[in-house]
Amino acid sequence: MPVYRDPPDGLTVSVDLLRGWTVRLIEAIGTPSDIAADVAQVLVAADRRGIASHGTARLPNYVALAEAGVLDPAGRPVRDGGRPALVRFDAANGWGHHAGRVAVDWAIDAAETLGTATAVVRNSNHFGIAGWYALRAASRGFIGIALSNTSPLVAPTRSRSPLIGTNPIAIAAPAGRFGTFCLDMATSTVPRGRIEVAARRGEALPVGWAIDAEGRAARTPEAALAGALHPLGGEEATAGYKGYGLSLAVDLLTAVLGGATFGPNVIGLFSTAGPSDLGQAYTVLDPAAVDAPGEFERRLEAYCQQLIEAPTVPDAPGRVLIPGEPEAEAERRADDHGVVIDAIHAQSLVDLGKRLGLPFPAAVPG
Amino acid sequence: MPVYRDPPDGLTVSVDLLRGWTVRLIEAIGTPSDIAADVAQVLVAADRRGIASHGTARLPNYVALAEAGVLDPAGRPVRDGGRPALVRFDAANGWGHHAGRVAVDWAIDAAETLGTATAVVRNSNHFGIAGWYALRAASRGFIGIALSNTSPLVAPTRSRSPLIGTNPIAIAAPAGRFGTFCLDMATSTVPRGRIEVAARRGEALPVGWAIDAEGRAARTPEAALAGALHPLGGEEATAGYKGYGLSLAVDLLTAVLGGATFGPNVIGLFSTAGPSDLGQAYTVLDPAAVDAPGEFERRLEAYCQQLIEAPTVPDAPGRVLIPGEPEAEAERRADDHGVVIDAIHAQSLVDLGKRLGLPFPAAVPG
Repeated sequence: MPVYRDPPDGLTVSVDLLRGWTVRLIEAIGTPSDIAADVAQVLVAADRRGIASHGTARLPNYVALAEAGVLDPAGRPVRDGGRPALVRFDAANGWGHHAGRVAVDWAIDAAETLGTATAVVRNSNHFGIAGWYALRAASRGFIGIALSNTSPLVAPTRSRSPLIGTNPIAIAAPAGRFGTFCLDMATSTVPRGRIEVAARRGEALPVGWAIDAEGRAARTPEAALAGALHPLGGEEATAGYKGYGLSLAVDLLTAVLGGATFGPNVIGLFSTAGPSDLGQAYTVLDPAAVDAPGEFERRLEAYCQQLIEAPTVPDAPGRVLIPGEPEAEAERRADDHGVVIDAIHAQSLVDLGKRLGLPFPAAVPG
Repeated sequence: MPVYRDPPDGLTVSVDLLRGWTVRLIEAIGTPSDIAADVAQVLVAADRRGIASHGTARLPNYVALAEAGVLDPAGRPVRDGGRPALVRFDAANGWGHHAGRVAVDWAIDAAETLGTATAVVRNSNHFGIAGWYALRAASRGFIGIALSNTSPLVAPTRSRSPLIGTNPIAIAAPAGRFGTFCLDMATSTVPRGRIEVAARRGEALPVGWAIDAEGRAARTPEAALAGALHPLGGEEATAGYKGYGLSLAVDLLTAVLGGATFGPNVIGLFSTAGPSDLGQAYTVLDPAAVDAPGEFERRLEAYCQQLIEAPTVPDAPGRVLIPGEPEAEAERRADDHGVVIDAIHAQSLVDLGKRLGLPFPAAVPG
């Protein structure tokens, strides 16, 4: 997940105001209040963690899906087969965030008894940041893993067409004084949003980010937007087939396992052409199943300490980072000083609030 | 895993002869016959699958470890805590291959009842190809995942020093007429062995493979061998931090979870300075827990069909591949015509056989 700096033209809004308004807005389109609370929690967490692309900026898209009747804002996940440590939920085409919260909570409870458990979810929708679900398990002392398949934007190695998603992998675990280890990554080199940012800035692209419509290395954002993203690793010579394999593995463990739509058959992101039928998976492991409580966390803390002490490369902008550190730093900043959202994002929420009769809370210039 | 072409100066030996001789050789250094059978199975599987770097070519190294007293060839894994779906094994500093076979078989049995199960192993040794253990689960209709930590050869993003391993991830699943999906990858861009091959061939290196001793991009194999490997993704601009995070995640799920030695504290590959104390983890999921038997495999087969039909990029050497296809092709070739091992590899086995009184089976020029 790219962590953007606070936008210079941003507006500041307190976390509580933003979350409260988001809950009311989601309720206004027919979402029961307990579900709305989950959705707002996950969306605002993305804003707090500096991942604006997955937060409240997407509210107009979600509202459009509900208004088009292709997402059921009142849909509730139901258990749909399984054994004690592996179950499936049918998300009933409801909010992916709520289905995810329910599924990861099921996995947390089962892992407490069994040591580990996995919940797969089908018939789901976009669920925001994968890291939120992994962090929920980590906050309880567990290792949490969250996976989702997504719309096809990535070209498999040798393919000219985008056939697979940026399928994210999130893994989180408690790390003592380092807070929480939280790897939350798309399996493409960069997300499509990063190419759009490069287009606005007029940047050239490095080899390894994307291909153009003919399947050659895209060196401009415009060429990339007409082509497809590279999987992590980039071209075949730099092992892009590993990122391709990881993206497939995520699809396999979510949609193919759970019976959701997979790979090239997934409709476009936030398309109102039909239900998304995405697949997600949540795995929780309890380290206390195999060692004295606290030992795992103590070891991970010691490991992090060794990593941050590493001598750095000449052009390093700072010390070695632990996965999740920049996001945690953004979260602290947002909780102390408010979330800074950019002008386009703010205007879209003002417009949405006006249309639904819920004025966006007073925002002060950042 | 890189799949090398059969070496032009190679010798051909039948799979049965090679495996039988390997069993006897391993027995000769004090390994009980059931354990020797497991080790030979895994080592020869690497040779058959075209991954010579992880097969019988390593026998001289393993023998040196046993003779130095830092690997116990008779060590047997014992259950060491756990709950129904997550257990730990202490490998008793025995062969990693045998501990892995025992652990993955435990996970297969537990997944049949519970849906999924994970076994972590500590106090282990190098276990050959991760793919073998994942394939064992896939051959029974399950999804298999195998992970191991390894010696530090990879520099975390921004670090000048190698502090983490090439920590492999293997995921396998049955794919109908496509055989078995098997992603078996190191979390570095390339393995160290690929740099050694480049050195022998006098090749320049692409950016993204390795750094030199000062932490700058290594453009020659010699500079890279004095430096460190890049994690998958290469430099920070091409998302090397994702490969770094994946390598850490593997360490976290193996050594940190199981209580083995992690990260920079792992001794060098095949060093006789002390026991390796590696950590491994095996996860098995039974798709039949959440859907009618065969449905998962049918979906994965349909997905593979869509992938291989993709239009290709201009310089593609062939159609889109399914992870594991080149290795399966090499395996079929070896089973039909024998394993082709290169001259240095063959000579090392001849020498080892002579020293231990077990002549290497007649090899005919390939």
